[in-house]
Amino acid sequence: MTDTSTPIPTSSAEPAGSDSLRALYADWTEIITTTPDLTTRLFRSVFDEWHQATREPEDVTYAEETIGGVPGIWTLPLGADRTRVLLYTHGGGFAVGSASSHRKLAGHVAKALGVTAFVLDYRRAPEHPHPAQVEDGVAAFLALVERGIRPEDITTIGDSAGGNLAIAVPLALRDQGQALPGRVIAFSPWLDMENTGESLVSNAATDALVTVPLLESMIAGVLAEGRIHPRTPLANPLHADLTGLPPLYLNAGDAETLRDDAVRFAAVAEAAGADVTLSVVDDMQHVFPFMAGVAPEADDEIAAIAAWYRRRNS
Amino acid sequence: MTDTSTPIPTSSAEPAGSDSLRALYADWTEIITTTPDLTTRLFRSVFDEWHQATREPEDVTYAEETIGGVPGIWTLPLGADRTRVLLYTHGGGFAVGSASSHRKLAGHVAKALGVTAFVLDYRRAPEHPHPAQVEDGVAAFLALVERGIRPEDITTIGDSAGGNLAIAVPLALRDQGQALPGRVIAFSPWLDMENTGESLVSNAATDALVTVPLLESMIAGVLAEGRIHPRTPLANPLHADLTGLPPLYLNAGDAETLRDDAVRFAAVAEAAGADVTLSVVDDMQHVFPFMAGVAPEADDEIAAIAAWYRRRNS
Repeated sequence: MTDTSTPIPTSSAEPAGSDSLRALYADWTEIITTTPDLTTRLFRSVFDEWHQATREPEDVTYAEETIGGVPGIWTLPLGADRTRVLLYTHGGGFAVGSASSHRKLAGHVAKALGVTAFVLDYRRAPEHPHPAQVEDGVAAFLALVERGIRPEDITTIGDSAGGNLAIAVPLALRDQGQALPGRVIAFSPWLDMENTGESLVSNAATDALVTVPLLESMIAGVLAEGRIHPRTPLANPLHADLTGLPPLYLNAGDAETLRDDAVRFAAVAEAAGADVTLSVVDDMQHVFPFMAGVAPEADDEIAAIAAWYRRRNS
Repeated sequence: MTDTSTPIPTSSAEPAGSDSLRALYADWTEIITTTPDLTTRLFRSVFDEWHQATREPEDVTYAEETIGGVPGIWTLPLGADRTRVLLYTHGGGFAVGSASSHRKLAGHVAKALGVTAFVLDYRRAPEHPHPAQVEDGVAAFLALVERGIRPEDITTIGDSAGGNLAIAVPLALRDQGQALPGRVIAFSPWLDMENTGESLVSNAATDALVTVPLLESMIAGVLAEGRIHPRTPLANPLHADLTGLPPLYLNAGDAETLRDDAVRFAAVAEAAGADVTLSVVDDMQHVFPFMAGVAPEADDEIAAIAAWYRRRNS
């Protein structure tokens, strides 16, 4: 029997604030390491809890739609400028995660920027290897333009593998002679399909989720068990021609193994003439903006992105 | 490599419409039967996908709050009467499910009724056996009244085990001499802690999710491995004194094993003098209103509840 004199535990009894994402990742890592033969199906169930890191953003409504053949969820902050769209590609190693797992994060970013977001449920690996994800991003982008959104009023944005897509989609559009989005935002982008970043080793003790074996399993899925070369430019934008990229905002947590993907991409993009803003935040885990509404590091980062976005609209 | 000429699969390629909930349950049943030693932790991950059965309701915003010590999510339809509240207790055998898994369903119902809903993250079994869940519901109800919501403008509502709580909370309030909610709504309530319903057998072949072994595992959790008697009135309202219950709307799917819990409770509540409306819908699975926005049976049911609710407000 329960002791009725005990105060009811609230969410504040859980690891809260700036440590909450690390605690969620540590829990997932325990599942991954203790569940033999964890299926892709169950992996997807677990990673769909990513939304738990994020507080429900207030004053945001949602709507499901299929755009350019790609299903997704609109996040529609009250009073948002509906002529501007964040085309959001979620993270999860191209294999897990969904529009649902990223709905709240996209809602926070859209609200801070005063615009709408469409979060894609693109086709996932391993059922659909590269370039299915890039194709879906391009299809949704072109369908938005077709319905009257100006290309320069679209921002491609994503996290982790979805940060890769936020960069690859504009490159694919450029290769096809299409107009480009006005801006690119990538949270902790995962770009390197060869696992050569120094932070993979130097931050192995501090990153609570992303390990080389985990990345290797994701690479096998998206690159079709080695049948696609790991330096394919649209799968690994570190090796792409970056000419003509729109202004980019990149970030990473200083504690994460994938930090050097953002750092290295900032360098090669600047060398190619791009307007790059890079934010690396102390002690933060992979895709720390997930803690929007929960941790000041996430809220401050999103506010900085909003300021960056507005400067480039003036 | 993918064939770029293949149309991108959309959600319409999945089992859609009235069969979609059965397909989701069949998938869960496959996981349950093929995963040895499925932990409560992973069980919760899987059941948090319940929201996938429901389309995002449009024109609804959300906010997190802790009320009476119980965390939860407000669903706030645009233009809703904020003086009226649905106090929503989610299903999941008292052990799984969450405010997140039921956010969209509660949003659809609140929108149809023109009111707000607060979806409780009550303490779950087995960590917290009965009566923790009832206590949390009572605490949230009293806190709403404390902040100025009139008791009669609160409706206790829930599905499955949460339908049990939607009934038990008013009974507990009555036992404590408190004012009661104005109405009770229970979707496919799970009430019988002794597994005596005939539909457990007669619908075993048509129910895609709920089996006697599954119920037995949930009973063990909420009744503390047998230390709590299965006819404890607030755990099993089929055996409670039902005097003074507010008007009740009960439903069930005709294809589900728990159908007779709703049917039997309607009979005993009417015998006790309650104003009972019972809806049993052909071919439907457990908690078929989950298909709101996806299947006409769910939308029609919610519309019928809205008409019932409005008649009792006039």
